[in-house]
Amino acid sequence: MSIITLTTDFGLEDWFVGTMKGVILGLAPCARVIDLTHEIGVCDVRAGAFTLAASYKFFPPGTVHVAVVDPGVGSKRQAVAIKTATYFFVGPDNGVLSWALAKEKIIAIHLLQNQKFFLKPISRTFHGRDVFAPVAAHLATGVPLQEFGPRVKSLVRLPWPEMKKTNGGLQGEVIYIDRFGNAITNIETASVPLDQTKNALVLVGSKKRIPLGGFYVSVPPGKPVAVPGSSGFLEIAVNGGSAQNRLRLKIGTRVIVPCRGS
Amino acid sequence: MSIITLTTDFGLEDWFVGTMKGVILGLAPCARVIDLTHEIGVCDVRAGAFTLAASYKFFPPGTVHVAVVDPGVGSKRQAVAIKTATYFFVGPDNGVLSWALAKEKIIAIHLLQNQKFFLKPISRTFHGRDVFAPVAAHLATGVPLQEFGPRVKSLVRLPWPEMKKTNGGLQGEVIYIDRFGNAITNIETASVPLDQTKNALVLVGSKKRIPLGGFYVSVPPGKPVAVPGSSGFLEIAVNGGSAQNRLRLKIGTRVIVPCRGS
Amino acid sequence: MSIITLTTDFGLEDWFVGTMKGVILGLAPCARVIDLTHEIGVCDVRAGAFTLAASYKFFPPGTVHVAVVDPGVGSKRQAVAIKTATYFFVGPDNGVLSWALAKEKIIAIHLLQNQKFFLKPISRTFHGRDVFAPVAAHLATGVPLQEFGPRVKSLVRLPWPEMKKTNGGLQGEVIYIDRFGNAITNIETASVPLDQTKNALVLVGSKKRIPLGGFYVSVPPGKPVAVPGSSGFLEIAVNGGSAQNRLRLKIGTRVIVPCRGS
Repeated sequence: MSIITLTTDFGLEDWFVGTMKGVILGLAPCARVIDLTHEIGVCDVRAGAFTLAASYKFFPPGTVHVAVVDPGVGSKRQAVAIKTATYFFVGPDNGVLSWALAKEKIIAIHLLQNQKFFLKPISRTFHGRDVFAPVAAHLATGVPLQEFGPRVKSLVRLPWPEMKKTNGGLQGEVIYIDRFGNAITNIETASVPLDQTKNALVLVGSKKRIPLGGFYVSVPPGKPVAVPGSSGFLEIAVNGGSAQNRLRLKIGTRVIVPCRGS
Repeated sequence: MSIITLTTDFGLEDWFVGTMKGVILGLAPCARVIDLTHEIGVCDVRAGAFTLAASYKFFPPGTVHVAVVDPGVGSKRQAVAIKTATYFFVGPDNGVLSWALAKEKIIAIHLLQNQKFFLKPISRTFHGRDVFAPVAAHLATGVPLQEFGPRVKSLVRLPWPEMKKTNGGLQGEVIYIDRFGNAITNIETASVPLDQTKNALVLVGSKKRIPLGGFYVSVPPGKPVAVPGSSGFLEIAVNGGSAQNRLRLKIGTRVIVPCRGS
Repeated sequence: MSIITLTTDFGLEDWFVGTMKGVILGLAPCARVIDLTHEIGVCDVRAGAFTLAASYKFFPPGTVHVAVVDPGVGSKRQAVAIKTATYFFVGPDNGVLSWALAKEKIIAIHLLQNQKFFLKPISRTFHGRDVFAPVAAHLATGVPLQEFGPRVKSLVRLPWPEMKKTNGGLQGEVIYIDRFGNAITNIETASVPLDQTKNALVLVGSKKRIPLGGFYVSVPPGKPVAVPGSSGFLEIAVNGGSAQNRLRLKIGTRVIVPCRGS
C-alpha cells in the first residue's frame, strides 16, 4: 500500500483534483491519495515549491509526491519523475519540486516521455490528469523509473533566497504567508543564537521592531512576535491576529534578527 | 473495494461532507470515498450536472457516483439510483445526474423509497447524510438496485444547450467557468475543423475576436486564446490570467467559431 | 481498520492538514482519515465544539475524533485523550471537545504528557502535527489510553447556552451559521410541541416573525422559515437564500418559539 500526495493550484471548486484521484485509483487501487493542498496561488511555482519542501518529509518512505503548478502546460517544458533515497517526486520540470529536492539525496531523474503511461487522448491543458496522475499511480505500483523516459542529469531549480549573515545580524525575508497571516521567513531557527537574543527586537520591514518569543501567546493578544515556526524557520506572527494585515507584510518583506558577533 | 464519488453544494466549511463519509464508512468500511467537488454553487443544478459529466468517466467501472445538489430536499421530488453499463449513479431526480447519463447506456432506474436503507430518524433537510450516503454505501456493498424501490422508466433531464451549425460557423455558449476563469463552451472540440480554422478568429460575445491555439501559452501572457479544453469542449482562456474577468464572460455568453462550408 | 476524524481551523490553503495525515499514515498505515472540516473560524473554539457535537455520532464505534482549534498552542494548556463508551476524542483541553462529550458516557480522561508518542523535535506552534496526529494514530493502533499520561478527573467545559422555557414560549439563540446562511439555534426540535405551534410564528431577533415549516421549500422562494434542522435543533432558513443575510442574523441572535402552557 503506497501513498501519493498531491500539491496543485487546481483549487477544490472544480472536478480537477477528483478526476486525478479517479485516474490514480483506476491504475493503483490500493494507493492512498493525500492532498497537501490544492490552493496554491494560480501559477505560483514558488509557493508550491515551499509547500512541498515544508511537508514532504512528514510522510513515510516510498511516498510519491506529485506537484502540479504548471503555467507552461502543453508547451515544451519537460515533465519529470525523480527517485531520491527516500521518496519519489513527480511534476513539471519548472522548479516546483526543487526546494524539496535540495534537501534530498537524488538517485535518478527521468523525463516523462513514454506515452504508454499517459491517459489517451492526452489533453494539452490538463496534464495533472493525463500525465502526472497516471505516472504517479504506475510508480506507486512499482514500475521502474527508467520505463518512463530517458535519464537526465539536472533539472530546473528555483533560486532559494538564502538568509545573509551581516554585521547587523541575520538578514532574511518573508517567503510564505499562511492562512493565519503568519509570515514565514527564510531565517533558519537553528541559526538564531537564542541565548544572545533574549531581549533583542527583530526588525520587520524598515521600521517595526518586534520581540522574539517561544510561541504565539508569548505576547498579549493583538501584539506581534517572532517565533520559531514549525517548518524550521523564524515566523512573524500576531497573537490571535494576522501579522500579514497588522504589519502589512508581503512576500519579500525584509526581516533582520540582530545578534552580536554574527 | 469499491469507490464512491461525491459531488455536492455542501461546501467544506461545515460538517456536512464529513458526516456523509462517516455514514458511508459505517456501512461500507472498505469503500473509498472521493470528493469530486463540494463547491458547486448553492442549488446550481446545472453546474453540478456539468461537473459530474466532465469527470465521472475517469473512474474505474463499478464506481458509485453520488451527486447532491438538491434545492427541493424534503419536498416531493424523487430520489433515484441508476445502473448503467459501467457505473452507478445516486441523487435527487432533478436533472443533476442527467448530463452524465446522456453519455451512458442506462440499465435500470429505481426510486429510493425503501426506508430500510435510510438513516433513522430521517431529517427533512439533509438527505445527503440520511438517504444518499447510506444508499450509496449499500450499493457499494452489493445490494441489488431493485431493493431500494420501484423501477421507473424515465428521469428528469436538464436540457443540454446544443451548439448550432450555422452559415457563420459553429455557434455555442459558455456553460461553465472554472477556478482559473477559463470559460468552457458547449462547442465540441471534435467538431471544429482545426485545419480550416488555422487563422480564424473566434467571436466571443458580440465584439471580441480571439485566436484559436493549442494551449494556454500559445499566446503572449495576458492575451486571450480559444483552446481545445480537457473536457472535450472549446475553452476560452487567457494566458496567465482569467478569461472570465478579462473578457467579462458569464454563463450563456455566445461564442462562434467561423468555419467555411459548415 | 480504524477511522480518525479531523476538525481544525487550519484551513486547506497550506500544508498543515496534509502533514497531519502524513504523520498519521506513517504510524497507522491502515487508518482512514476523514476531514470533518478545517474551515472552523480561526481560534473559534465554540464553532469547533459545535461542529464536532453535530457530527461525531455518525461515525462507527471506535472512531478517534481529533479536534484542534487551539489558540493556546505551546503555552501551558493541557492536551487530552478521552475514551467514552463508544469513541475516542483527542485535542487541547480548552473546551473544543466538551459539547460532544456532554452527550457521551466518559470512561477515562488522560493528559498527553508522554513525549514518546510525540513527533521530535516538537514544535511550539503546530501540535496538530507533532502531538495530536501521532497520539491519534497510536490510539488507532491500540495503544492503551494510560500510556499517554496521567489520568485526570475533569476537563475544561464550554458553557452550553441552554434554551429557556418562559411564559412566552421556548427562548433560545443562534449558535451556528452554516455555509448556506442557515442559522442553527439551541432550541431542541424535540422540545417544540409541533401540534400546538401549527400556525405559530417564531420570533427572530426583536421584530421579525416567521412561520414554522417542515422543510426549506415549505415557503415560497425568498421567504424565511423555521425548520427542524438535521442536527436536532430548530434552524432559521430562507428558501433558496441566506437567512443570515436576509434576516441579519448572527451568533447570539434571540429566537423565541411561542407555545401555550410551556
